Amino acid sequence: MKPLGPIPAGYSALNGELAIGGRTASALAEEAGQTPLFVYSSAMIAQRIADLRSALPERLKINYAIKANSFAPVLDFISPLVDGLDIASGGELAMIQSAGIDTSRVSFAGPGKRDSELEAAIAAGVTLNLESANEARRALAIAERLGRTPALAIRVNPDFELKGSGMKMGGGAKPFGIDADQVPALAREIIAAGCNWRGMHIFTGSQALSAEAVIDMQGKVLALADRIAGEAGTVLPKLNMGGGFGIPYFPGDTPLDIGMVGKALEKRFADLPDTLAEAELFVELGRYLVGEAGVYLTRIVDRKVSHGETYLVTDGGLHHQLAASGNFGTVVRRNYPVAIASRFDAEPEEEANVVGCLCTPLDRLADKAHLPPAEVGDLVAVFCAGAYGASASPSAFLGQGPAVEVLV
Amino acid sequence: MKPLGPIPAGYSALNGELAIGGRTASALAEEAGQTPLFVYSSAMIAQRIADLRSALPERLKINYAIKANSFAPVLDFISPLVDGLDIASGGELAMIQSAGIDTSRVSFAGPGKRDSELEAAIAAGVTLNLESANEARRALAIAERLGRTPALAIRVNPDFELKGSGMKMGGGAKPFGIDADQVPALAREIIAAGCNWRGMHIFTGSQALSAEAVIDMQGKVLALADRIAGEAGTVLPKLNMGGGFGIPYFPGDTPLDIGMVGKALEKRFADLPDTLAEAELFVELGRYLVGEAGVYLTRIVDRKVSHGETYLVTDGGLHHQLAASGNFGTVVRRNYPVAIASRFDAEPEEEANVVGCLCTPLDRLADKAHLPPAEVGDLVAVFCAGAYGASASPSAFLGQGPAVEVLV
Repeated sequence: MKPLGPIPAGYSALNGELAIGGRTASALAEEAGQTPLFVYSSAMIAQRIADLRSALPERLKINYAIKANSFAPVLDFISPLVDGLDIASGGELAMIQSAGIDTSRVSFAGPGKRDSELEAAIAAGVTLNLESANEARRALAIAERLGRTPALAIRVNPDFELKGSGMKMGGGAKPFGIDADQVPALAREIIAAGCNWRGMHIFTGSQALSAEAVIDMQGKVLALADRIAGEAGTVLPKLNMGGGFGIPYFPGDTPLDIGMVGKALEKRFADLPDTLAEAELFVELGRYLVGEAGVYLTRIVDRKVSHGETYLVTDGGLHHQLAASGNFGTVVRRNYPVAIASRFDAEPEEEANVVGCLCTPLDRLADKAHLPPAEVGDLVAVFCAGAYGASASPSAFLGQGPAVEVLV
Repeated sequence: MKPLGPIPAGYSALNGELAIGGRTASALAEEAGQTPLFVYSSAMIAQRIADLRSALPERLKINYAIKANSFAPVLDFISPLVDGLDIASGGELAMIQSAGIDTSRVSFAGPGKRDSELEAAIAAGVTLNLESANEARRALAIAERLGRTPALAIRVNPDFELKGSGMKMGGGAKPFGIDADQVPALAREIIAAGCNWRGMHIFTGSQALSAEAVIDMQGKVLALADRIAGEAGTVLPKLNMGGGFGIPYFPGDTPLDIGMVGKALEKRFADLPDTLAEAELFVELGRYLVGEAGVYLTRIVDRKVSHGETYLVTDGGLHHQLAASGNFGTVVRRNYPVAIASRFDAEPEEEANVVGCLCTPLDRLADKAHLPPAEVGDLVAVFCAGAYGASASPSAFLGQGPAVEVLV
């Protein structure tokens, strides 16, 4: 038996089934007309943002990194609830534009921006988080050709990392941003070139569950921003302090203590240096806003026993849930929170493996899990599916195609 | 410095650039109108199949598992060169049908077949490789409803594995196929039910480079098939002996000695038991037929130095090349064969990291590689991109979208 990850708070049973947005899993599957499907709860997204607003200083603005979930109805829903949106490609810019979102609220980070992407972003008034001196010069040249004043910020590769983070984005050689010691000179250069100076973006890592680590990181980010601004002889109109707020996925994970983060920030904000006194201060969050609000529902199409082990074979799999299968950014496979959605209030009674429909041993959604006995036709829920699920999985693998997505 | 995987045989320089199908990388990129792109060589696919035919016994038939690469022009090209095609989903069946391929040449394996997929396959006369007793009964019931005689084979979960294979598909509890000791009874049941009995499918693993391991596996497969057929009181009209033929990806990998495999099979075929005397004998190959015939070309959009390390930032990445980034089925990241395609005959002079355009540290195509000095605009080639590249990668990640594919 292997433990399952913790089911996020806020999910409960209705008529014995998992309910999302007040509707049972089976009703949601029936409305969608097919399985598998991703269900995102608008109420849970709104609640998460409200909880953040109440825990964090009023001054701190919250950006949504749409890479976490760019499903059009999610963008429509979340856009008015946040202060800005962050994109990572020209494709994401097109999504923003097709959602009718004001592009002056948008900033664009990404280490490999093409000229065509820079051009589209500058034309739309999007803030560019510059990733290299070369990119800065390309952006200035394109802006001049377009007759536009580009909104430019510098992405800093900090000399420190977010401790305990799932993905380290700082602290040594990195393809992201510009090494901190080279930033002051570049800031002076682009300000002198007449850009609309938008300050800095310092992203150190993601998916941290320790408030202490986040607080420590935020202190270092503010100190580094002050130091760089001082050396550059400028003040910062904006500072994207990065993200890093994690959500529990695995057995033993506990939620980030956001109240503690807020109290520490409150203290720091009361005593900001002159370089930051007038700055708009942002956090950029993706997974933290939407991850726990999403559930992946897939139907059991076979139940079989091989050499004494029970397999629940579903019509979903790693083509929609690559990270849950343990094949994306993890070395040791651990179980996500998984449940039998159609028997959500039943007690676990047996050990079973939940696998996908793909012809590969990689396609496992739960390994040796303790579950209520489930039959063909039952629905399985994989939680924490609101971020980096649908878009971060190889949906065309083995000819399967994408899952349905719904926002309820 | 970390070594790169071996570049497959058959690639050479033309005007200093990598040539594929007689055209330079830069010409191919220009014709495609964009980067990144996958280029598949029809000549190399044809050569690989011809080499196999000459090394293997004439009696042995060769099936193509389209999951490896189902790009429509590849299907059109390869279909007349092979004896049959294997699919893994209803989506792949639709691809076969849209290519106009005779569906009686097709067999369908996959542990989570839905009723709708079984129905489409039975209606099309596709052979089903049954994965469980439950699936057998569902298939028989659907066939009866349709008034069709279903073509049924049984996929066996063997008690042994393919030694040294990249993916083990046998030797213990598995979601694939039916445990060997339960197969005779099921075979009797479906034969008695009046199906078109198509024998067995025994797949033990994939991606083996050792001829000894493949030979050992094939011997065990033939012995197991004979034993099961004997216990079931039947002879086998067909036996899919599985695949397992690997290609070199990583430093130190050497090609499978297919001549040795052929000689051993020749001996075994001269002395087959009565249960197999009349059987059509197949191998099912995907990666081995097309993997080395494909190259992924991506353009360098930035060159930067961080803390003394050089980064070549490309417009491609793990969204097209998940396995090459080390994030699919591998525990320890090793370098695929990678080269500067636009300077293919230049000597390596520097250590550089080749990364993709995605905002994640996972997006690395070559780590600390020894390469000729490359500049913005140069093309990078990732080899072994003909199988499990485009379709096995999360192309929608970060709003990027799929790469262009071309067959030359």
